[in-house]
Amino acid sequence: MNPQNQLLNAYKQTAYPLVGHGKRNLHILKHVLNEMDENLESDTYGTGEVIENFQKKIASFLGKESAVFFPSGTMAQQIAVRIWCDQKGLKKVAYHPLCHLEIHEEDGLKKLHQIEPVLLADKTRVIRLGDVVQLKEDIACLLLELPQREIGGELPEYRELQAISAYCRENGIKLHLDGARLFEVLPYYQKPASDICDLFDSVYVSFYKGIGGIAGAILAGDEAFTKESKVWKRRHGGDLISLYPYIVSADYYFNQRLDNFEQYYVQAKELASFYNQCHAVETKPFVPVSNMFYVYFHLPKEVIEPVLISMYEETGIGLTSYVRKVDETTCYCEVNVGDRYAPVPKERIQRAFQILNEKMSEIIGKKSS
Amino acid sequence: MNPQNQLLNAYKQTAYPLVGHGKRNLHILKHVLNEMDENLESDTYGTGEVIENFQKKIASFLGKESAVFFPSGTMAQQIAVRIWCDQKGLKKVAYHPLCHLEIHEEDGLKKLHQIEPVLLADKTRVIRLGDVVQLKEDIACLLLELPQREIGGELPEYRELQAISAYCRENGIKLHLDGARLFEVLPYYQKPASDICDLFDSVYVSFYKGIGGIAGAILAGDEAFTKESKVWKRRHGGDLISLYPYIVSADYYFNQRLDNFEQYYVQAKELASFYNQCHAVETKPFVPVSNMFYVYFHLPKEVIEPVLISMYEETGIGLTSYVRKVDETTCYCEVNVGDRYAPVPKERIQRAFQILNEKMSEIIGKKSS
Repeated sequence: MNPQNQLLNAYKQTAYPLVGHGKRNLHILKHVLNEMDENLESDTYGTGEVIENFQKKIASFLGKESAVFFPSGTMAQQIAVRIWCDQKGLKKVAYHPLCHLEIHEEDGLKKLHQIEPVLLADKTRVIRLGDVVQLKEDIACLLLELPQREIGGELPEYRELQAISAYCRENGIKLHLDGARLFEVLPYYQKPASDICDLFDSVYVSFYKGIGGIAGAILAGDEAFTKESKVWKRRHGGDLISLYPYIVSADYYFNQRLDNFEQYYVQAKELASFYNQCHAVETKPFVPVSNMFYVYFHLPKEVIEPVLISMYEETGIGLTSYVRKVDETTCYCEVNVGDRYAPVPKERIQRAFQILNEKMSEIIGKKSS
Repeated sequence: MNPQNQLLNAYKQTAYPLVGHGKRNLHILKHVLNEMDENLESDTYGTGEVIENFQKKIASFLGKESAVFFPSGTMAQQIAVRIWCDQKGLKKVAYHPLCHLEIHEEDGLKKLHQIEPVLLADKTRVIRLGDVVQLKEDIACLLLELPQREIGGELPEYRELQAISAYCRENGIKLHLDGARLFEVLPYYQKPASDICDLFDSVYVSFYKGIGGIAGAILAGDEAFTKESKVWKRRHGGDLISLYPYIVSADYYFNQRLDNFEQYYVQAKELASFYNQCHAVETKPFVPVSNMFYVYFHLPKEVIEPVLISMYEETGIGLTSYVRKVDETTCYCEVNVGDRYAPVPKERIQRAFQILNEKMSEIIGKKSS
């Protein structure tokens, strides 16, 4: 077995894996269906109570006029950007260099919609007002991701968002929110979702990240926008005869977990502080602003993997199932806090980090001696 | 209530609605999950046993090297056509004027892929070899739908398919099968699916029509083709983190119903013959070649609707939930035979058609007197 699989296996075998909500198995869906009336009729190509009620509910939660359920955020966001570009007659969108559309979608936006991205800011930080103001070319749409996942989940302050929004409105630029993890940042902003969404013309939220559903997304905006998005949803092949397996689970876990995000956020700050107490380990952000953060180990991947495995075996605590190489001296992983964290005895977590720290110190000591 | 809703309601209230497998409610999915191990792990962005095993199984059934599960046929077929067009460097596909891509997809093929369709044959009949040979322009791909749903589900003979396939291969034209209802036509051809699919370079099949699953499709072809289709699947937003709700139900109902299509076909022929014994009613095809056919009533929509409703109420047999206007003198509906047909007492069906015939004769008699 290669070391990568060894770490994954060791993580899976721990009594207390700390990341996320739990296993993504059939139980997640079965549990929801067992709570529901089996006579509930399927949605049919975007119509029917099951889809329409959920769309209304989330539109209202986000403070938007209307909402459409999509099978994926990839589909929803390309479509949002396309609508704004078509409306302005300009096929240009500005977003972060580590935007999902830029790095995870096989260039769908370019290949299917012929839309040209303008990259704002650099890979180490979030987009600021200055980046937008300094733009040398006109754009139809600006996309902001809250939190900026690929840099550990960083956030601009609310006042900066307000300023960006005001600037965009004055300058005829539509503002789109990649809110894949919007629920996760509400505790940081200490605001209802509608206060954030008010700043944006269109909003996408996901139901399988913090919410922990099976898959699926909502795209929200005004009535004319969502109406047009349904036409594009059909063109993309996303207007399925039945989306209810995703909808009923999104609704169920939304109800179940919405009030937990405050707790996940507090716990993420605690967990990050444990990491930051270890030798040659640091989190980004140093103090998390949501339930997620990145962990950087200042040791080579091949060195940290066996350290983690032996700590897992000794303590029964699993910190991560993988680490990814940054360069010859550093590797990292993403951590997000969900339902799994709370039930773990605190002293066992602390003991695990104590042992991790001892092992790290020993290695660093050897290296520098 | 308008007459259309009245017919739908009357149909729903019959003891024996004759069309399809049954209600599309949550039970369909719950029943499958109850049969399965809830510890089965979700697929993850196209990987994992649950998706890979099903893809292999259907590839083998279709006699193709490889297969990919898609959330929809709309997505799968646009992608198939795109791949063949890219390969030839020619953005032209030929298909029937009533092809799904032409009339049900909001022009996704044109708007997302800039592919120009060339319409073959006319709206009353299937594509013949002559239509292909007489093409005045080069095309990258020819799409054939078996059966041609929008004309009642008509089929070319197998020998004609062989001739078209041979012509396409000689002339560098890729042949794609819209096999949304492929399982449904195997009894007519009396051949294994692989004998049909051998004639085509790429094949799409659906799992929520005759199979009766929740949603989802398979696109099959050679390894290079399916590999490229996965890249486009991600671009379209169809590479969901979890497709298993569709996959496990597709697999379950595929196993359950595959051997029933012969029976549905025989029953469709019987049911069509009952229709054809009625005054001013005829089916297309006159003798069905699959489990489906269209029924034409040579009376105005407003006249036939109350006739059907009163017959349903008198007999407890529901023939159709709707009729659609063709012109001032004719309307039609689509009928497909599934699990619901077999358990209905034959004499009750015959009695229903007898009464329908009497009512039709009376009206026609009055009209002509």
